[in-house]
Amino acid sequence: MKSKLIIPWENRPDGSNDIMWRYSKNPVVGRYDIPSSNSIFNSAVVPFEDGFAGVFRCDNKSVQMNIFAGFSKDGIHWEINHDPIEMVAGNTSMIDSDYKYDPRVCWIEDRYWVTWCNGYHGPTIGIAYTYDFKTFHQCENAFLPFNRNGVLFPEKIDGKYAMLSRPSDNGHTPFGDIYISYSPDMKYWGEHRCVMKVADFTKSAWQCTKIGAGSVPIKTAEGWLLFYHGVINTCNGFRYSMGAALLDLENPDKVLYRSQDYLLAPAAPYELAGDVPNVVFPCAALTDDDKVTVYYGAADTVVGISFGYISEIIEHLKQKSL
Amino acid sequence: MKSKLIIPWENRPDGSNDIMWRYSKNPVVGRYDIPSSNSIFNSAVVPFEDGFAGVFRCDNKSVQMNIFAGFSKDGIHWEINHDPIEMVAGNTSMIDSDYKYDPRVCWIEDRYWVTWCNGYHGPTIGIAYTYDFKTFHQCENAFLPFNRNGVLFPEKIDGKYAMLSRPSDNGHTPFGDIYISYSPDMKYWGEHRCVMKVADFTKSAWQCTKIGAGSVPIKTAEGWLLFYHGVINTCNGFRYSMGAALLDLENPDKVLYRSQDYLLAPAAPYELAGDVPNVVFPCAALTDDDKVTVYYGAADTVVGISFGYISEIIEHLKQKSL
Amino acid sequence: MKSKLIIPWENRPDGSNDIMWRYSKNPVVGRYDIPSSNSIFNSAVVPFEDGFAGVFRCDNKSVQMNIFAGFSKDGIHWEINHDPIEMVAGNTSMIDSDYKYDPRVCWIEDRYWVTWCNGYHGPTIGIAYTYDFKTFHQCENAFLPFNRNGVLFPEKIDGKYAMLSRPSDNGHTPFGDIYISYSPDMKYWGEHRCVMKVADFTKSAWQCTKIGAGSVPIKTAEGWLLFYHGVINTCNGFRYSMGAALLDLENPDKVLYRSQDYLLAPAAPYELAGDVPNVVFPCAALTDDDKVTVYYGAADTVVGISFGYISEIIEHLKQKSL
Amino acid sequence: MKSKLIIPWENRPDGSNDIMWRYSKNPVVGRYDIPSSNSIFNSAVVPFEDGFAGVFRCDNKSVQMNIFAGFSKDGIHWEINHDPIEMVAGNTSMIDSDYKYDPRVCWIEDRYWVTWCNGYHGPTIGIAYTYDFKTFHQCENAFLPFNRNGVLFPEKIDGKYAMLSRPSDNGHTPFGDIYISYSPDMKYWGEHRCVMKVADFTKSAWQCTKIGAGSVPIKTAEGWLLFYHGVINTCNGFRYSMGAALLDLENPDKVLYRSQDYLLAPAAPYELAGDVPNVVFPCAALTDDDKVTVYYGAADTVVGISFGYISEIIEHLKQKSL
Amino acid sequence: MKSKLIIPWENRPDGSNDIMWRYSKNPVVGRYDIPSSNSIFNSAVVPFEDGFAGVFRCDNKSVQMNIFAGFSKDGIHWEINHDPIEMVAGNTSMIDSDYKYDPRVCWIEDRYWVTWCNGYHGPTIGIAYTYDFKTFHQCENAFLPFNRNGVLFPEKIDGKYAMLSRPSDNGHTPFGDIYISYSPDMKYWGEHRCVMKVADFTKSAWQCTKIGAGSVPIKTAEGWLLFYHGVINTCNGFRYSMGAALLDLENPDKVLYRSQDYLLAPAAPYELAGDVPNVVFPCAALTDDDKVTVYYGAADTVVGISFGYISEIIEHLKQKSL
Amino acid sequence: MKSKLIIPWENRPDGSNDIMWRYSKNPVVGRYDIPSSNSIFNSAVVPFEDGFAGVFRCDNKSVQMNIFAGFSKDGIHWEINHDPIEMVAGNTSMIDSDYKYDPRVCWIEDRYWVTWCNGYHGPTIGIAYTYDFKTFHQCENAFLPFNRNGVLFPEKIDGKYAMLSRPSDNGHTPFGDIYISYSPDMKYWGEHRCVMKVADFTKSAWQCTKIGAGSVPIKTAEGWLLFYHGVINTCNGFRYSMGAALLDLENPDKVLYRSQDYLLAPAAPYELAGDVPNVVFPCAALTDDDKVTVYYGAADTVVGISFGYISEIIEHLKQKSL
Repeated sequence: MKSKLIIPWENRPDGSNDIMWRYSKNPVVGRYDIPSSNSIFNSAVVPFEDGFAGVFRCDNKSVQMNIFAGFSKDGIHWEINHDPIEMVAGNTSMIDSDYKYDPRVCWIEDRYWVTWCNGYHGPTIGIAYTYDFKTFHQCENAFLPFNRNGVLFPEKIDGKYAMLSRPSDNGHTPFGDIYISYSPDMKYWGEHRCVMKVADFTKSAWQCTKIGAGSVPIKTAEGWLLFYHGVINTCNGFRYSMGAALLDLENPDKVLYRSQDYLLAPAAPYELAGDVPNVVFPCAALTDDDKVTVYYGAADTVVGISFGYISEIIEHLKQKSL
Repeated sequence: MKSKLIIPWENRPDGSNDIMWRYSKNPVVGRYDIPSSNSIFNSAVVPFEDGFAGVFRCDNKSVQMNIFAGFSKDGIHWEINHDPIEMVAGNTSMIDSDYKYDPRVCWIEDRYWVTWCNGYHGPTIGIAYTYDFKTFHQCENAFLPFNRNGVLFPEKIDGKYAMLSRPSDNGHTPFGDIYISYSPDMKYWGEHRCVMKVADFTKSAWQCTKIGAGSVPIKTAEGWLLFYHGVINTCNGFRYSMGAALLDLENPDKVLYRSQDYLLAPAAPYELAGDVPNVVFPCAALTDDDKVTVYYGAADTVVGISFGYISEIIEHLKQKSL
Repeated sequence: MKSKLIIPWENRPDGSNDIMWRYSKNPVVGRYDIPSSNSIFNSAVVPFEDGFAGVFRCDNKSVQMNIFAGFSKDGIHWEINHDPIEMVAGNTSMIDSDYKYDPRVCWIEDRYWVTWCNGYHGPTIGIAYTYDFKTFHQCENAFLPFNRNGVLFPEKIDGKYAMLSRPSDNGHTPFGDIYISYSPDMKYWGEHRCVMKVADFTKSAWQCTKIGAGSVPIKTAEGWLLFYHGVINTCNGFRYSMGAALLDLENPDKVLYRSQDYLLAPAAPYELAGDVPNVVFPCAALTDDDKVTVYYGAADTVVGISFGYISEIIEHLKQKSL
Repeated sequence: MKSKLIIPWENRPDGSNDIMWRYSKNPVVGRYDIPSSNSIFNSAVVPFEDGFAGVFRCDNKSVQMNIFAGFSKDGIHWEINHDPIEMVAGNTSMIDSDYKYDPRVCWIEDRYWVTWCNGYHGPTIGIAYTYDFKTFHQCENAFLPFNRNGVLFPEKIDGKYAMLSRPSDNGHTPFGDIYISYSPDMKYWGEHRCVMKVADFTKSAWQCTKIGAGSVPIKTAEGWLLFYHGVINTCNGFRYSMGAALLDLENPDKVLYRSQDYLLAPAAPYELAGDVPNVVFPCAALTDDDKVTVYYGAADTVVGISFGYISEIIEHLKQKSL
Repeated sequence: MKSKLIIPWENRPDGSNDIMWRYSKNPVVGRYDIPSSNSIFNSAVVPFEDGFAGVFRCDNKSVQMNIFAGFSKDGIHWEINHDPIEMVAGNTSMIDSDYKYDPRVCWIEDRYWVTWCNGYHGPTIGIAYTYDFKTFHQCENAFLPFNRNGVLFPEKIDGKYAMLSRPSDNGHTPFGDIYISYSPDMKYWGEHRCVMKVADFTKSAWQCTKIGAGSVPIKTAEGWLLFYHGVINTCNGFRYSMGAALLDLENPDKVLYRSQDYLLAPAAPYELAGDVPNVVFPCAALTDDDKVTVYYGAADTVVGISFGYISEIIEHLKQKSL
Repeated sequence: MKSKLIIPWENRPDGSNDIMWRYSKNPVVGRYDIPSSNSIFNSAVVPFEDGFAGVFRCDNKSVQMNIFAGFSKDGIHWEINHDPIEMVAGNTSMIDSDYKYDPRVCWIEDRYWVTWCNGYHGPTIGIAYTYDFKTFHQCENAFLPFNRNGVLFPEKIDGKYAMLSRPSDNGHTPFGDIYISYSPDMKYWGEHRCVMKVADFTKSAWQCTKIGAGSVPIKTAEGWLLFYHGVINTCNGFRYSMGAALLDLENPDKVLYRSQDYLLAPAAPYELAGDVPNVVFPCAALTDDDKVTVYYGAADTVVGISFGYISEIIEHLKQKSL
């Protein structure tokens, strides 16, 4: 889309050896940044025209969950629409939702596809496409309930669309693994395969309760680079951290490497306290050559960003893979 | 398939006003009817050649769950193979299963399709087809985990295969509604719609915890007649009973009538006691003009049959529909 | 009311040392004794005219719970109305119920009072009075939800109506003690006192999970004799047994003696198997001098009776009191 | 009582559009403000003599819960007694409590009535009256256990005292609706009616788990204005927020309008962290013409205040009512 | 002890291929076989003098759990003492118990050792010795709470006493594996090793929830033959079945073979219904050359026996080992 | 060991009446103080050579739990090894662990003994000894799983080693009391006695859910002074606070005095927020005459210290004992 994109960026702080590091001015989106909002978090951004567009989860002061379009020149300062996205019919006429949350956005071929957790008798994966972030065409839900964290691949694989997702239950879901499914047409889905499961408690406890795909996989020479979240169930609740995995380019249900160490875990004040304390939840990534900027929801309240170098992340995965 | 079929039958007992009644010589399949079995129940039968064939859930004495082919001249006396069904590749090469249980069998166009609860990282819906009950071709699982009680329609609807199922979790699942999904090719599935949900406790408590499709829907002039199970969670566990619903012929996600009263609930000794007490679980139905014979698992231990007249059942549904 | 009442009776079986013993022809009411019923149990009877009247819990085949009037000459053979009791307004116009179950009946001064578990945003205690078991006048619910097992005393105490009850929650309630409350007018209730609590597991495990009043207390020279149920939570569910307590005549929140041993626990086939296995649940008692006949629900399915001598029961309580 | 009362007040911050806003110097009572205290929160204040009096929940360093009288000239700076309130007999001699917490205070006719969560075999509603905040006369508990959040109306309704409450269980209670009950004499209670229930998750998720009355209802020309709390059960625990409802003046079980949006939700540091993170719990309100100052417990640790205009709050309710 | 012992025995029924089979006159001990008992089950027998002695779990009608001595000439007809065993001090003065249940008896060198589940701040393993089944000397509890199913080896191993046990929790314990511990003196225990764990659900579901040692291991040329129970958690509760394992003679924490199929599972009426339905719980075995008779509790209500040939059982284990 | 030790110390802040007070520069060990660490907390220190040594729980960025040796001159500035402790065989060859956490260190006679929560089929108590904090000799686990918080006494009692511990389950353990066990040889353990149990909710709620020994008991003229943690289960999770108990010198299962008030409870920012909010968890104490410095884990993230005078603490216990 864009010839040369300037993504948000800040160099690694002096003295830090961290593979990924936070933006010093986090959060980039505050909880009250639109008049109706109680919190803005778990949101997705992509390059768009001469800047960036995004789809944002804004819970309002009734704590109704919905998704909103937003725009930015620099990826840091955002103008988010005050009204949620209104859908028009795509490949279905069934476009009602009880709620929408945790969007991802993915450019494939000629348009942007939005996936989100869609309320249809419980959570499942909603799909819509847009060309302009003004008109959104809602399609059939990908799966039966209950499902969350549906993330598309940015190109077809062996001629078919591919989506990661995490089968769930209808509550807070104390389990969850990442699967891949394929579709010839974005309407019917099959060839479901398990991609990766929670880690053993003794091997990598931060991801021993559930895991879920985060950002749209980034194509690299060595494989699809996926940022994902992992959860540990402490005696005081779920703690969400961020890791990465490298999936095989041709057979993305094959995991080449996967984080044993987390890349980012709740430690900053806006991650430790908020509507849901101790949450780092990646939903999108921007790249500029080797640089990658990951957008993540913090404490289910605000949006933060973090930075890294793709080559370093992959090298790190290779050196300490689960 | 068959010009004139003689199904198992016994007239309504004198003095009974029941819409459906049990076979006086139940159970028709006992728990130890093959050498390896701990229990045989939740099994499906269809007309086949000059008699009947079936796919039986036989848990062995390790309490491993698997499905076995069986044959009968009269639908009452069964020869069940001593070895479980071995699958060959159908539209997929992924034909391993951690376990198989609760089969259904459905003739569509030119072959028999078997669906069952298939163990692939948890329960989901397995699919296979056979022409002869000797060679079974396993296909892609219909859905992501977790799912149970996948039941096919006996003909395509609007050019597509249609399947009922009940999204579940990975345990004993204290919830569950019936959905329908469509497929152009028995490989990719979509257009998921909620068909019917659990009943309100005060309206029909026997089906207030979860429900699941039972037998292959029977095409009648008035709609698809579906036998299904409903569950109430008493202080001493789940109690499974049987009801029926009439679905719209063209839009089977539309429920025309549905049991408020159960048609059969645990009351016979072999239903009240066994590996799981208080279970009546329908999986198949045979018809002969107006007569219908329903096969059901009893107490997760044996197979019983019950009888009724389709016209009476539909009339009953009309008169007392939920 | 009655000069000389002939209650159902059968002498203690030869060789038995049991304080109470079952009727040899139990159950006296079967699960299908009216056309609509799935089960008839947990029901109350009183002397009425030249025989007996009763209020019966009949769950229908939708498993809707309701109460029905019934009549008997001998207390064993019952004619139960096929339609549930219809209420008219008593001291309130709010006479709707989501459900009614587990009735008790108590004669006080000039009329029969019925109490039951009444569905009003959850279970609470419903109250009605009748003179003839034809017209029933529904009154204000005694308490806020959640409550069950409301049992009236057969005369005023210190000028006020008195009711035992068991505060509960909105589910299967894994706890529960017996309280007493008073009312000047059957409309407003107060002076709530704890009467007796569950027993210590090591002292009397059959009543260590919850207890609830059963029959209307019987006035004896030594105190109010109350039959009640106690519950133990085994690894396979709740088990309900019957005990008795003797309450102080003037201060019935004072327990004089109380069963350490149960008087009756599930052991007969109709108590061990049924809709809810392992339930003995007393709801009423008839007396004739020293004889007492206790009506109890069995396995949430049928009604049984058991017999004893009041003097022996009190002596037993004295000798082995908790 | 008071001719002209000067209540704590601070104008709405510049640029704010919030209906209600926090005091900039919150908290007004700190956790260690008396020597024995671990935390002081969920407390009630009223005009008294030439200033204010209050009843404060002070948990001591054994985390025993008790209520303490306190006094203030300005409603901000408080002198709280170092010893808890000692009760004398009111309309009952049963004045022991296992614990006391979450008090409310209400002037009716000639005296102040205090209600609180009283430990009598579990939580129920304790009642006492005082003329001077020195001598407190404890009365009968209003209800059977288990109950919390008992709040009186400041005048009789149709000749009877009226109390809001929330039936509960004996633990952390993952459910709860608001009921009203009436009493002719503050001793016997009846005519229990459900006033308002939790909201549907998709309509107003912040109040979808439980709700409870907060401050004594304020009589306005349009109805009784009630501040209440609502709770959502996140994966990391309960989150308590504040809303308001307008109840019909004559039939206060009729809700005229009710918050869809919360009015105040945990966002300040002293609300996000403390003994129980993420709690805003209103217990009292002072009014001065159109101004209202709401006292609320924050994080089960300290007391904060917030401000608003009654007319604006009512207008807000009308415009966005559940 | 005995030169030639005639143990209870009945040949395999005609036509049966079962490895183990039930006694046709089961149960051998009824629930009311002593005056105080509610149930007699989970009991242990050994050869004694010219017949047999046993220690029986008799729950009384208060459902207090205690152990009783009993005697029999033929192992089938038992005289059980009407009073529970009274302990005298063995190697400790702390001989109080909150309760005693599930005894085992083991002859080592010069005396009989009894182990049982002993109530000391929760369940742990009690130990006592006797020479005559009249005087019992209680010793130190082997372990900290919580533990159940302590079973001694009939001879020292490498100079030390050895005991199997199953660490538990303080409730119904939905988990549990078998460990071995050693002691130089029956007072201090250590060298704890895990012997065998629950089976994978897909391999042997009947033992996938918890397992526990049953009878005293029988020394054979090929190893220690242990009968044990396994549990599956169905939607209607725990189901207990019996299997066997062969442990290495010198290193009994090494499992040579282990049942994949159960040897006996609940199927007889007295196993399917009772105080706890669906329980087969082995506690003792008698041998006569190749014959073995296993005593087991049925439905937590009565005692049954079953038969087999040691050589066949070992052969069966070898052919189908987990 | 040391003639005169200078322990970390800071006088009581002006105006404070607290029995114990925090170091003003807490935390003394930060979460990232070694390169691999995610958090460093729940750690133990002792005098060593001319300064101090310690064993630290450092969870790495995979959230694997392990223990590390560290050294300090002043007890405040620590050099912690970057690699975890490697064990060599002590009195056993079984020295593998699934994980190690929550160490304590105790000097007895001629060496340092380390105890910790050791992963062997679940948590149990691991034991090792060292002379130099370089070579550690791992011994037999003290107990069967499941156990945590094993704390040794610093000298033999009646000729035997003595250890406090808290029997647990295999999860987050919502219960737990402190027991003592004895061993003649650090290999076999017995004579298990219950020392102290959780407090009644109404007496001392901060320790009503579970308690566990903290630091090695300090010998005083009046008894063994033990710092321990207590837990309350709030609606938003477990909250850990610190108290103290005085145990009888000769019979340490006899509690002389015990905290009713906590001595330290989460209130500082680093205690209120972190990986597990609201945790104060004592693991070690240093003494210098009457001064005592307690090391505690804060929020499962960092290490803090607090100060007090032994004489004052004992006096406080005497004046307000549970």
